[in-house]
Amino acid sequence: MKKVLVTAFEPFEGETLNPSWEAVRALDGKAIGGARIVTRQLPVVFSDVLGVLYRAMDEIHPDLILSVGQAGGRSDITVERIGINVDDARIADNAGQQPVDEPIVAGGPAGYFSTLPIKAIVAALRAAGIPASVSQTAGTFTCNRVMYGLLHRLHTEGNRVRGGFIHIPYLPEQAVQHPGAPSMARDNVIQALEIAIRVALETETDVKVAGGATH
Amino acid sequence: MKKVLVTAFEPFEGETLNPSWEAVRALDGKAIGGARIVTRQLPVVFSDVLGVLYRAMDEIHPDLILSVGQAGGRSDITVERIGINVDDARIADNAGQQPVDEPIVAGGPAGYFSTLPIKAIVAALRAAGIPASVSQTAGTFTCNRVMYGLLHRLHTEGNRVRGGFIHIPYLPEQAVQHPGAPSMARDNVIQALEIAIRVALETETDVKVAGGATH
Amino acid sequence: MKKVLVTAFEPFEGETLNPSWEAVRALDGKAIGGARIVTRQLPVVFSDVLGVLYRAMDEIHPDLILSVGQAGGRSDITVERIGINVDDARIADNAGQQPVDEPIVAGGPAGYFSTLPIKAIVAALRAAGIPASVSQTAGTFTCNRVMYGLLHRLHTEGNRVRGGFIHIPYLPEQAVQHPGAPSMARDNVIQALEIAIRVALETETDVKVAGGATH
Amino acid sequence: MKKVLVTAFEPFEGETLNPSWEAVRALDGKAIGGARIVTRQLPVVFSDVLGVLYRAMDEIHPDLILSVGQAGGRSDITVERIGINVDDARIADNAGQQPVDEPIVAGGPAGYFSTLPIKAIVAALRAAGIPASVSQTAGTFTCNRVMYGLLHRLHTEGNRVRGGFIHIPYLPEQAVQHPGAPSMARDNVIQALEIAIRVALETETDVKVAGGATH
Repeated sequence: MKKVLVTAFEPFEGETLNPSWEAVRALDGKAIGGARIVTRQLPVVFSDVLGVLYRAMDEIHPDLILSVGQAGGRSDITVERIGINVDDARIADNAGQQPVDEPIVAGGPAGYFSTLPIKAIVAALRAAGIPASVSQTAGTFTCNRVMYGLLHRLHTEGNRVRGGFIHIPYLPEQAVQHPGAPSMARDNVIQALEIAIRVALETETDVKVAGGATH
Repeated sequence: MKKVLVTAFEPFEGETLNPSWEAVRALDGKAIGGARIVTRQLPVVFSDVLGVLYRAMDEIHPDLILSVGQAGGRSDITVERIGINVDDARIADNAGQQPVDEPIVAGGPAGYFSTLPIKAIVAALRAAGIPASVSQTAGTFTCNRVMYGLLHRLHTEGNRVRGGFIHIPYLPEQAVQHPGAPSMARDNVIQALEIAIRVALETETDVKVAGGATH
Repeated sequence: MKKVLVTAFEPFEGETLNPSWEAVRALDGKAIGGARIVTRQLPVVFSDVLGVLYRAMDEIHPDLILSVGQAGGRSDITVERIGINVDDARIADNAGQQPVDEPIVAGGPAGYFSTLPIKAIVAALRAAGIPASVSQTAGTFTCNRVMYGLLHRLHTEGNRVRGGFIHIPYLPEQAVQHPGAPSMARDNVIQALEIAIRVALETETDVKVAGGATH
Repeated sequence: MKKVLVTAFEPFEGETLNPSWEAVRALDGKAIGGARIVTRQLPVVFSDVLGVLYRAMDEIHPDLILSVGQAGGRSDITVERIGINVDDARIADNAGQQPVDEPIVAGGPAGYFSTLPIKAIVAALRAAGIPASVSQTAGTFTCNRVMYGLLHRLHTEGNRVRGGFIHIPYLPEQAVQHPGAPSMARDNVIQALEIAIRVALETETDVKVAGGATH
């Protein structure tokens, strides 16, 4: 049976929960699209996060990898297009680290495009009534670090395994503390991740539908 | 047994559903806080909407009235503070009417404050993990017309019955068509309305907690 | 020669300047539309602000009164439609006062509509290339207090003198400290106020063009 | 005397002007930081834009290249960090072309980082009272195409010449047609570009100050 590694993050920036983990842990052990879901929580610590990810990959030997993170302030499920080779922390991470303009991989390429079918995922989510879009930036914090570090390793290994990153909004109970911030119910996020995984497993070549931004 | 009249609207502005009705119709016939819920759908037609509301009031003789409407673009449950004496339609209503700067009640006061405990409702919603806030404007479309028209009649009748208005976000399936727009799951909205009704029935005097805006 | 009293506010909420005063003080002594401009700065103090305003009115006997305030976060010139009879302070004022749900005038009506030609002002600003719109709420802080208190006194005196309120965005140098916040150049704000005063002096009956909000 | 090539775009998406050209053409022939400014307008046409840019570079042999484009909806001057190797057009360009998920340079790297001192530019703009920030995405339209295509050529030529991209908000007269959209006065934009050019000429090594995003 195929295995899908799905990662999420621990809470950060003063939150008591991280919606990515609240959703992802509900998938642990499930069978989706004929594959078994294995989940891992990653630390929001620049120096540690890729080590934890890589050890999970070594241990699980997944056929597909989806990393999920919180994007407080975004209103929909955003499927990331690219991870870029820079850490630039607006805030300190959970270990007090705040790298500025440091490459994630010294000498590495400026970016890696997601190898997930991002347009097919967005289309399937919308068809299911879940607001979703392509995002042109995963930021420059630990989420981007995971996306770049994941794709760098998969590239180094010949891209036989596909991987990518999805950002999700706050949960409603978080948004209570952020007046005006949008949110998405946990059940909708879980359903979205299930759809994304199924589409990623089933879609060899991505569809060509517009998902860009003028800026 | 006490009766609570809860109104919502039909779809407008090209939508195929109105989230207010999708949530409110789920409450029909329920018992909340010892009261029976009776629901009505109102037309998004300036010339008709208050007639339909007033006939429902004549027929049902409710002990409390809560009107609910869609606020596409808002991210949380917003409990309205005031209805104002003006129709000023940014778009045509469902009958093609588009009044501009017409009073709702000729010679009526400029506004009526909600007689619901708006601060207690917001506090209870937040305590339940549902994003909510006080809104200082219900707009100048049919929602505001219903709020002003409702409060005008209740005032005329001596304010023995309390009433007010709550705006709710798009449903997720609507937000799919409005890129970037926030949304709220139907279950959360239903839960929010149940809480609002219970608090309104149980709270004689509103709590004094800040809920204002600097502008 | 006619006189126009134009008021603005001192800085508040940690700002070192208030854009309303930065713009308004540039108008002092000018002749606009055949009238002389007299300016006054008002304190951001609930207990004092109306006293300062009323004394200025007693002293100057203006033929028109325009009050101007900062609306940090708004992107355009907003001409306020209504002032409402409530103080509800989200933050403490400059004297540490933070009233919650207190009437401005005990027993006063819920609101007063601006007696300025708000639609004609918005139309003239747009025609001049300045972003502008009608606002349906002036908030519940000292700006709204001034608007309500001004219109209450003018109403009490028979509405022979017209008055109203305009909110303006941050200046660019303020927005530097508020990442993502829009701003407007001081010259544009000054031009906008000059246009608003001229239109207010020249327009007997407001134009009927849509300027409402669905919520 | 050193030469700086500054490019801007023609109007697109139904606009009658492009704020980038309105600002840039004011710089033509000026001396800034000891260098002569040469300006060029670029077409908003995918198939043509890089050809026009490259011919200008062949003709002018600039020592520095700054490309400027309109970012309608952004409120501040945004200095772009990276151009990515994809065209994904949300709307058709001025020739009706709408490429979707096409590489700009087949086989090229996923991205190129700006070789301008982006942090020093943002710091200098803020110090001058002009709202500015680093942007993590230049979109996937002709602006990004110019940024990627420019940096690809400069890289191919050994990066002896530095280049990058700056996005600017709507002008106020444009924002009149986009209710709620922020804008920036032309004079402020011109001043911002002069500062950016001077800083780019004078700054060998960029400063290390946080300018990242959590997502």
